[in-house]
Amino acid sequence: MRDVLIIGSGPAGLTAAIYANRSGLDTAVIEALAGSGGQVVNTSEIDNYPALPGINGFELGMKMREHVDSFGVPVIQDKVTAIDHSEPGRMVVKGEKDSYEAKAVVIATGANHRLLGVPGEKELAGMGVSYCAVCDGAFYRGLTTAVVGGGNVAVADAQYLSRICEKVYLIHRRDSLRAMDSLQKKILSTPNVEVKWNSIVKEVRGKQEVEELLIGTRPDANSDYNKEEILKVDGVFMGVGMIPTADFIDDIAKDEGGYIIAGEDGVTSIPGIFAAGDVRAKNLRQIITACGDGANVISSVENYLAAL
Amino acid sequence: MRDVLIIGSGPAGLTAAIYANRSGLDTAVIEALAGSGGQVVNTSEIDNYPALPGINGFELGMKMREHVDSFGVPVIQDKVTAIDHSEPGRMVVKGEKDSYEAKAVVIATGANHRLLGVPGEKELAGMGVSYCAVCDGAFYRGLTTAVVGGGNVAVADAQYLSRICEKVYLIHRRDSLRAMDSLQKKILSTPNVEVKWNSIVKEVRGKQEVEELLIGTRPDANSDYNKEEILKVDGVFMGVGMIPTADFIDDIAKDEGGYIIAGEDGVTSIPGIFAAGDVRAKNLRQIITACGDGANVISSVENYLAAL
Repeated sequence: MRDVLIIGSGPAGLTAAIYANRSGLDTAVIEALAGSGGQVVNTSEIDNYPALPGINGFELGMKMREHVDSFGVPVIQDKVTAIDHSEPGRMVVKGEKDSYEAKAVVIATGANHRLLGVPGEKELAGMGVSYCAVCDGAFYRGLTTAVVGGGNVAVADAQYLSRICEKVYLIHRRDSLRAMDSLQKKILSTPNVEVKWNSIVKEVRGKQEVEELLIGTRPDANSDYNKEEILKVDGVFMGVGMIPTADFIDDIAKDEGGYIIAGEDGVTSIPGIFAAGDVRAKNLRQIITACGDGANVISSVENYLAAL
Repeated sequence: MRDVLIIGSGPAGLTAAIYANRSGLDTAVIEALAGSGGQVVNTSEIDNYPALPGINGFELGMKMREHVDSFGVPVIQDKVTAIDHSEPGRMVVKGEKDSYEAKAVVIATGANHRLLGVPGEKELAGMGVSYCAVCDGAFYRGLTTAVVGGGNVAVADAQYLSRICEKVYLIHRRDSLRAMDSLQKKILSTPNVEVKWNSIVKEVRGKQEVEELLIGTRPDANSDYNKEEILKVDGVFMGVGMIPTADFIDDIAKDEGGYIIAGEDGVTSIPGIFAAGDVRAKNLRQIITACGDGANVISSVENYLAAL
């Protein structure tokens, strides 16, 4: 039986592996896909990981994985389907291929951005289609962008982009925003933000990169989104939410979005099971904050192990 | 008037500068010393900053600073002596050379390890004298180390090192530990930890690196620390506490150690003033957790600015 099993090999999981190994814990990482780095690997250029400006996402994922490999921490490929935590200090992680035992488990499985599901979205992902304004907004300085959505994230993203971009469209399918009042008030009074009400994106178009959006508008309550329009944009940010990867565990406390409830220390509602990174209920999901989580969570694991 | 002034140019301050600049905020950093990186620059080898295994501390500090410089964020050299926050949304930061105005301020001034103040300590700092077991412990795998102190940090450090090192001395000046009961119980039953009661370090000795400690013991309640002994060690960890750099601001809520009270979001007791990194009351003080703080705090600054 190992001291700790870390599920997930993105920035949070790999940092947790570094900290666990350095603190002398018998550690292994389980990753669902062959290829570490999590969402990072799908990002072409990362400019906010301190000390490595402009690094390619795939390269950053590789570097983090090599860091873990250099310590000799085993990385197992398996998709976790359940965790049996009925016996304190003996967690049984069940995968599709095998079962694994450890005194403690760190869930660092991350989250995936919800896709809009329109033509051109996948083809131009990373080439103008983005899912994170804080991550990629700075690449659109002085340009025109669009944000899709009407909730807190979409409206905050549009506000964020308004300070960087020449012009920002906010495309929302309804005639009112869902975001909190203060955010709504601010965005509606920001001169370079134009809200496209009752509108959906039908297609993302461009050759090498995003050039325009085909949107459909509902002229009145009885119409469908059939009034079409072309918006010339340099980038489009999908602000339609994320899906945390936590469906393999049901009996842990989660928030309304399905994120595992845990503080900065990663302590969850189940003793012996900890959470770090994007899968955790938190405000800001960034590579560097996921890494911070990975370090913090191992302190909590150590406290748990010391008390066993 | 700038949007945000960041006081301190360690990992927390520099990461905050990266995030603030990328989010379009008019930003400047104020550093007390010419030379960025904070405590990092005094660390010879850093093996727990993900993706950069084994990097030299000075080099990591330089790389972070260059990252900030590449964005054109000004770094001002001045020692901050006070912050006037009497007017909401108009913070006046007073330095020895000049005054600076911003809508918001991030305090990222860090902390310094308390020195023991004995011969050899400064001379061998980074060459066997360490102030952080989680940072440097892994370099002493299979070797003999000593920890100086009897509080929570010293005892937790000794426990941490006991899993890595062949042998660990815990040197404490009194006949009982101050650490919490659970930590005490565990350390006293760990076979490879030997507590040197009623003892102080008189000298750290070694040529290129730490070789031995001269300790003095108090044989009974009426004696001084006059019974001398040599302990052969490969490293010594000073667990005698830290001093946060927050003496320039008195009217902000601090904990008993002088750290500024703020959660993961960096929100302090004073609207418009935020805290990030080692100066904040928190459990784990690491480069990567300081960087995470730097990113998180800018989200809070943005919320504050949006509500002005």
